[in-house]
Amino acid sequence: MDHYVRIFDTTLRDGEQSPGATMTSAEKLEVARALAKLGVDVIEAGFPAASPDDLEAVRRIAIEVGNSAHGARTPIVCGLARASRSDIDKAWEAVRPAARPRVHTFLATSEIHMQYKLKMDREQVVDRVVEMVGYARSLCEDVEFSPEDAGRSDPKFLYLVLGEAIKAGATTLNIPDTVGYTTPDEFGALIAGILKHTPGIDNCIVSVHCHDDLGLATANTLAGIHAGARQAEVTVNGIGERAGNTSLEEVVMALHTRRLIYNLTTGIDTTQLVRASKLVSNYTGIVVPPNKAIVGANAFAHEAGIHQDGMLKHQLTYEIMRPEAVGVTRTRLVLGKHSGRHALKARLSELGYTLSGAELDKAFERFKALAEKKKTISDADLEALVADEFYQPREVFTLDGLQVTCGTMGMPTATVRLRAPDGQVHTQAAIGTGPVDATYKAIDVIVQAPNTLLEFSVHSITEGIDALGEVTVRIQGKNGARQLDPQRETEHARTFGGHGADTDIIVASAKAYLAALNRLLIASGKFGEGERSSVSGAKVR
Amino acid sequence: MDHYVRIFDTTLRDGEQSPGATMTSAEKLEVARALAKLGVDVIEAGFPAASPDDLEAVRRIAIEVGNSAHGARTPIVCGLARASRSDIDKAWEAVRPAARPRVHTFLATSEIHMQYKLKMDREQVVDRVVEMVGYARSLCEDVEFSPEDAGRSDPKFLYLVLGEAIKAGATTLNIPDTVGYTTPDEFGALIAGILKHTPGIDNCIVSVHCHDDLGLATANTLAGIHAGARQAEVTVNGIGERAGNTSLEEVVMALHTRRLIYNLTTGIDTTQLVRASKLVSNYTGIVVPPNKAIVGANAFAHEAGIHQDGMLKHQLTYEIMRPEAVGVTRTRLVLGKHSGRHALKARLSELGYTLSGAELDKAFERFKALAEKKKTISDADLEALVADEFYQPREVFTLDGLQVTCGTMGMPTATVRLRAPDGQVHTQAAIGTGPVDATYKAIDVIVQAPNTLLEFSVHSITEGIDALGEVTVRIQGKNGARQLDPQRETEHARTFGGHGADTDIIVASAKAYLAALNRLLIASGKFGEGERSSVSGAKVR
Repeated sequence: MDHYVRIFDTTLRDGEQSPGATMTSAEKLEVARALAKLGVDVIEAGFPAASPDDLEAVRRIAIEVGNSAHGARTPIVCGLARASRSDIDKAWEAVRPAARPRVHTFLATSEIHMQYKLKMDREQVVDRVVEMVGYARSLCEDVEFSPEDAGRSDPKFLYLVLGEAIKAGATTLNIPDTVGYTTPDEFGALIAGILKHTPGIDNCIVSVHCHDDLGLATANTLAGIHAGARQAEVTVNGIGERAGNTSLEEVVMALHTRRLIYNLTTGIDTTQLVRASKLVSNYTGIVVPPNKAIVGANAFAHEAGIHQDGMLKHQLTYEIMRPEAVGVTRTRLVLGKHSGRHALKARLSELGYTLSGAELDKAFERFKALAEKKKTISDADLEALVADEFYQPREVFTLDGLQVTCGTMGMPTATVRLRAPDGQVHTQAAIGTGPVDATYKAIDVIVQAPNTLLEFSVHSITEGIDALGEVTVRIQGKNGARQLDPQRETEHARTFGGHGADTDIIVASAKAYLAALNRLLIASGKFGEGERSSVSGAKVR
Repeated sequence: MDHYVRIFDTTLRDGEQSPGATMTSAEKLEVARALAKLGVDVIEAGFPAASPDDLEAVRRIAIEVGNSAHGARTPIVCGLARASRSDIDKAWEAVRPAARPRVHTFLATSEIHMQYKLKMDREQVVDRVVEMVGYARSLCEDVEFSPEDAGRSDPKFLYLVLGEAIKAGATTLNIPDTVGYTTPDEFGALIAGILKHTPGIDNCIVSVHCHDDLGLATANTLAGIHAGARQAEVTVNGIGERAGNTSLEEVVMALHTRRLIYNLTTGIDTTQLVRASKLVSNYTGIVVPPNKAIVGANAFAHEAGIHQDGMLKHQLTYEIMRPEAVGVTRTRLVLGKHSGRHALKARLSELGYTLSGAELDKAFERFKALAEKKKTISDADLEALVADEFYQPREVFTLDGLQVTCGTMGMPTATVRLRAPDGQVHTQAAIGTGPVDATYKAIDVIVQAPNTLLEFSVHSITEGIDALGEVTVRIQGKNGARQLDPQRETEHARTFGGHGADTDIIVASAKAYLAALNRLLIASGKFGEGERSSVSGAKVR
């Protein structure tokens, strides 16, 4: 058995399915680029049957990331499909432009899912698997099959279904603990049993896909790998429905830190872990708590005392990983008001953003404005600035001006000036319970897109009271767009996120809300399709 | 072997050691009350040798929670001590007033810790353990001993040290994986080995204490319990240094949900889990991400579709725990502007807050003011209001007025009026990079307490744009108070947190900053000791 564990990242599919994690196509492309840079083996880029937008987002990733100059490390680009011809056709259409495309189809095999969700018996399930895996294989050389809810399925039935899937052409067999129910001992035994009893399994890759409902996703994944699985399905920061999926960074660093026990390697460049974590947290608005393993702000926190004696050996008394190994850098202050265009371009390029021409001009202008207010500009500031400037939805309404008065005397008042899609400028004043409420009420009068604010959060990106504030909001349209869930076969109201950064948190709040509203308006179809494309994407067009 | 697993909560000791998690004595007492209500068996209330304040906080918990009317369920109150007479004396002084006191002492047993930190050889370590465990036992019937960094210690040496500790009088032997290095198989084997080879272990409780550096704390804890440990050391939300400790809620719910596998019980009232989680998150300012197992906002997120068919059986296809089992309630709207004093008192009492007289008047006044602005008041609103009103540090400077202007035209300006400890009122205007910066600069001119702002975050407590905003800040004084770390034997600069709630987030920001500044000033000793006591504490005095 080989010693290489393939990292299958499903941040863009299972991760994006979690409430509020909706990303724009441009953001998805940027995450896919970061995943390629991180060195993942497979990018599950989405569920193309969900909507034409979803299909197009996967296709763009297949074209722009699945064919890039990564050489032997070009990731496989994978699309999810339910076990139906129509879904498989759409997944194939989306991933086909990639150098190494994969179609991933699934069907539930647990009694509870077969009985209550599928309303099919065992024989019908086997027939459908054989038919659909065979159909996918007739289109694509690389086919992955998942028996959904495998963790609660009868192992003997699993051996049978998987054996038939192999005969029908599946090349990777993924074993999901869909509801996060198993313990490491159970899950390891399940994988060992599958490897032992499934006919033809020797020529396939066995994969594991765990959920964290009981806090055991990482341990279960490692137990599965230890038992012989050679692909791990994971997400950055462990995002995903409910308690989320297995966290990429935990599995990779456990294999790395305890390599004497596991004797396995991955293709991950661990120094990119923190950057990928921040990118995904920014785009999804899903916070990473300070006590998150590997990528949390405190994961490597050192107190003053321990550094003072400066002994490397001494550090190891409380540190099992080097912060540098996961991309935590100690130098944070990089640019100031006297830094020029060249320095900005060089630093952005080191951070992975390739800007030139008008885009660089725009970024430099914002950089100078920020440097006027703030003494030192950190990498985090730059990343927030680039995200705020370039990863916004296509603007339907734009913020033209904002003036706010608030305080303990009550009567917080906001005056908002917006430019409408027809070019007309609207000005509106409103009173609210606070400055953000007043601002949002004034915007609502102009934009007229009824919605519910589900979430509002602000954090300062950097230390110090002059920090850039970043605001994340999540809204749900009333009578708005609906989204198809591949597993539950149900549609649910779509939520839209927006973020904005500014040293003035009320301005940042207005920007974030407008970004979310613009997404809602675009999804409603009244204002055309598409979004402004990404920074580095601009080079490819 | 019995089937009962003791839950030893160290939120107030190991959890509070994490950067920024510093709580006031009143907050600690409130957390201790919540832990007692949750049904934990042991509350590790702090490290009394750290400072007289820490000793006093533990003592108050011993008196007010360790003797309360919980009957047979009155928790053991435990204090941590390094292996020295002075530490043990202080721990004993602090926990002595409890009905069931425990002293917990520790000494490192791994080669790396003995060599570089302790600078002691094995023989010296054994001698010290025997002496100090014996000394602790001469004071207290219930003595716990931990061989620090046991996860990286030579098992044979562990058997020897533990055997000697038992002879010297230890009643509980706790095995910490201090640096979060072990895998579940290793840790389970370590516990099994200790149970098999340690002389006299049959009459003791073996305990496990894991850290989450590789994301394996819950799995390691369960592996240790499965191997025979009967006490688990955990924290609410898994807070703690670096990646944190084992999460209480994950261990408890894994044992509960998979009881057919583990065949073990705990004394935890699981319906209190979400409430305890929120309380700790509020007081420490350490966020719980939406994808946190058991207590995250999405852990039980259901999309509309799945509820529409209303079938309980169907829900089980994606749900392995009932939300009600952990205290997630579906009804969130409780009170409105027409609700009276009685309704407020009743609801607060259901939430666990016993207010009367002047305190209830004050709460009712704030409730009415909020109800004027906001149509419906949820439990979360009420809890934020109570926290904001009653769990503040003793006020040194108080906010008398605030007026702010900001927006896209730049020049954000704040005018602040503060009342100083001498009763004098100071008014100051300042310009900043944003409204919060301007406000903080104006406050700084008046208060004159140089500090660094380490963290600033805002979240809306409830859905809707008229929500209460809660701001959390964390500051570090320049040349300020220092705090002793029991394990590293180093002191580090103390950080101070503050939170404030208001429908106006700039007002909430000012309150939060003032709360943190007041804590810093009190700790500097210039403005006397102590804090305003807690709500329900008022009944006991």
